[in-house]
Amino acid sequence: MLEYPGFNFEVVKEASDTNARLGLLTTPHGTIETPNFIFCATKAAIKGAGPEDLRAANTDIILANTYHLLLRPGPDLIEKMGGLHKFMNWDGPMLTDSGGFQIFSLGHGSVAEEIKGKRNSGYQKSLKKITEQGATFKSYIDGSKKVLTPESAIDTQRKLGADIILVLDECTPFNVDKRYTERSMELSHRWAIRSLEEFKRGHNGKQGLYGIIQGGVYEDLRLRASNFISEQPFFGHAIGGSLGANKAQMYEVVEMAMAGLRKDKPIHLLGIGGVQDVWENVAKGIDTFDCVSPTRIARHGWALVRTEKRYRLNLMNATHRESDIAVDPECDCRTCQNYSRAYIHYLLKAKELQGMHLLTVHNIRFMTRLFETVREAIKNDNYLEAKRAWLQV
Amino acid sequence: MLEYPGFNFEVVKEASDTNARLGLLTTPHGTIETPNFIFCATKAAIKGAGPEDLRAANTDIILANTYHLLLRPGPDLIEKMGGLHKFMNWDGPMLTDSGGFQIFSLGHGSVAEEIKGKRNSGYQKSLKKITEQGATFKSYIDGSKKVLTPESAIDTQRKLGADIILVLDECTPFNVDKRYTERSMELSHRWAIRSLEEFKRGHNGKQGLYGIIQGGVYEDLRLRASNFISEQPFFGHAIGGSLGANKAQMYEVVEMAMAGLRKDKPIHLLGIGGVQDVWENVAKGIDTFDCVSPTRIARHGWALVRTEKRYRLNLMNATHRESDIAVDPECDCRTCQNYSRAYIHYLLKAKELQGMHLLTVHNIRFMTRLFETVREAIKNDNYLEAKRAWLQV
Repeated sequence: MLEYPGFNFEVVKEASDTNARLGLLTTPHGTIETPNFIFCATKAAIKGAGPEDLRAANTDIILANTYHLLLRPGPDLIEKMGGLHKFMNWDGPMLTDSGGFQIFSLGHGSVAEEIKGKRNSGYQKSLKKITEQGATFKSYIDGSKKVLTPESAIDTQRKLGADIILVLDECTPFNVDKRYTERSMELSHRWAIRSLEEFKRGHNGKQGLYGIIQGGVYEDLRLRASNFISEQPFFGHAIGGSLGANKAQMYEVVEMAMAGLRKDKPIHLLGIGGVQDVWENVAKGIDTFDCVSPTRIARHGWALVRTEKRYRLNLMNATHRESDIAVDPECDCRTCQNYSRAYIHYLLKAKELQGMHLLTVHNIRFMTRLFETVREAIKNDNYLEAKRAWLQV
Repeated sequence: MLEYPGFNFEVVKEASDTNARLGLLTTPHGTIETPNFIFCATKAAIKGAGPEDLRAANTDIILANTYHLLLRPGPDLIEKMGGLHKFMNWDGPMLTDSGGFQIFSLGHGSVAEEIKGKRNSGYQKSLKKITEQGATFKSYIDGSKKVLTPESAIDTQRKLGADIILVLDECTPFNVDKRYTERSMELSHRWAIRSLEEFKRGHNGKQGLYGIIQGGVYEDLRLRASNFISEQPFFGHAIGGSLGANKAQMYEVVEMAMAGLRKDKPIHLLGIGGVQDVWENVAKGIDTFDCVSPTRIARHGWALVRTEKRYRLNLMNATHRESDIAVDPECDCRTCQNYSRAYIHYLLKAKELQGMHLLTVHNIRFMTRLFETVREAIKNDNYLEAKRAWLQV
């Protein structure tokens, strides 16, 4: 057995109309209520906002991507600087991933990113080889050859020092066949065991390790993966890999994965954060989400608002040129309390950084408000009704 | 005579060792202590920071550039949105220029910018013609022909609604001869009178008009300009135009302009904000300064610090890679209180917006602290001693 002394997860309330649940997730850097959203500080910085903006928006937890930090500035430097929390001035709970997702998704090209609504990031295909030992890839900074193994992923994350860390797994694109998916899942399971062994060797009680459920879109594989991961002494679980080709399939795949997962540990859904996806997947028992979308779309001029199609308002649109109302008149964020759509439209047109910043601030608050609403609905045990009301505008 | 009911300028104390003076400058949006620094929100937004960052740094007054706002989003839109203060969420004192400086400096190419340490902004030469009537130039946004006259400059600034506004003047580059400078100055004087007439026509008591002293580097012309402008019913005065080819000449030219200027009105020095320039020109009686440099150099990785050559520290430099000290260990800004040089170095290398933001926050606070020190020295009547001590590191 593995002990996680600074950690705890408690299910406080279960909804009667769905599998939605209210939880308390304790880490050495604080306790957060779940369901909750993990904001992406990809390269150890939120793009377009700072920690003080997150705090003002009642953000509880953030993540950083090991892949990027591994290449620059490197885990040794961050460890020397006192760890990621101190380095980037975030004293709340934090998660890092293993680095695998970026290696595999960037390596396979844009295919793996499609399903999660991510765009091709312009990196060249950088994955060189996957072996039993690990993955070999090319640094996008200096072209040098790098190797990531289950052990080095744990070691790197230990140096970064986030509260919640992830095992290395292979992320397959959604178009691979069942045979490849099965072998890949089995490889990921062997890597999971190696990750646990390495984690135990250096365990200092300050980090909690999550296992990842793979298995693609195949029900029997997802069940096998969930059962296998459930038997290991992880602190929490994450659902990863391909979730299918569309939203309907995503909800099915999440259900497949949930079927075999033990329910006494926190469950994270990797890379998902669309508004409807949040409502649907919380109903299936998901506790935490992460997605770059809220901050990324802000930098492209989009605000998250409840009343628009796909919950997105394009502030670049000329219709906002003379609009003196707030981006979202119901929102309590600094942007909506102080600025007009006309001003933000103008800033975007003039390519002023402040335009991206103000939309980022709003989108962060939109997400934290969404999760406040979600948790409130579970508290009041009217989740389905609240979901219908929220989505029906 | 012209009344400025919402305005006042009071000299509170005069230094015994220099012409430095402590003042209180009252505008409809508040009273500020002088000497003070006016931060440039060029296109109605501080680049790399927001109003809340300015307030946190004890910034008292900002400016916006009429030239840019004239082209986009246009004064009519800003007026419709309730004026610049509301549009950009700044409720403190604000200044706008006439638009002339950009037209002439961009129009003449980079020559006029050299003297004030500004770089060629990449705009094409856009000035088409200067006549008695005004200046014709080409919009850098859509290439359309635009005309700026003394009257339209006042009308535009009335719509923008800043507290302090400026007359239109011709800004000559520093390499023009005396004959051209003299004729240009005389044209600017006729424009000053027309500006005053237009100002009176629409005067609502909410704006204070500044006249501008031209005359290039020629002592007799500066004296004539100062005498002429002193006789007009302006609320305040600004020293503009070419200040010479180097710092020593700048200080001389400022002294020439000051010689003929009445001392009961506030005196602004246009476009100057270097650290040494502040100390030297306050000693000559300058009350306010403005310069894009503190925020501009931040976006290029430079921090203002007292202990470095030219008071600039380049955070891009590899020597900061593992430095765990603050940008300026003596500084109380959010950046220096929470982040290491190593983090900012890394952010700049990774091209994360947060790097520019954190340096901008620091540089703003550096400037407000500098002016706090300057005012304190006048209060204590030890200006020369404080100046020597500050500059001697």
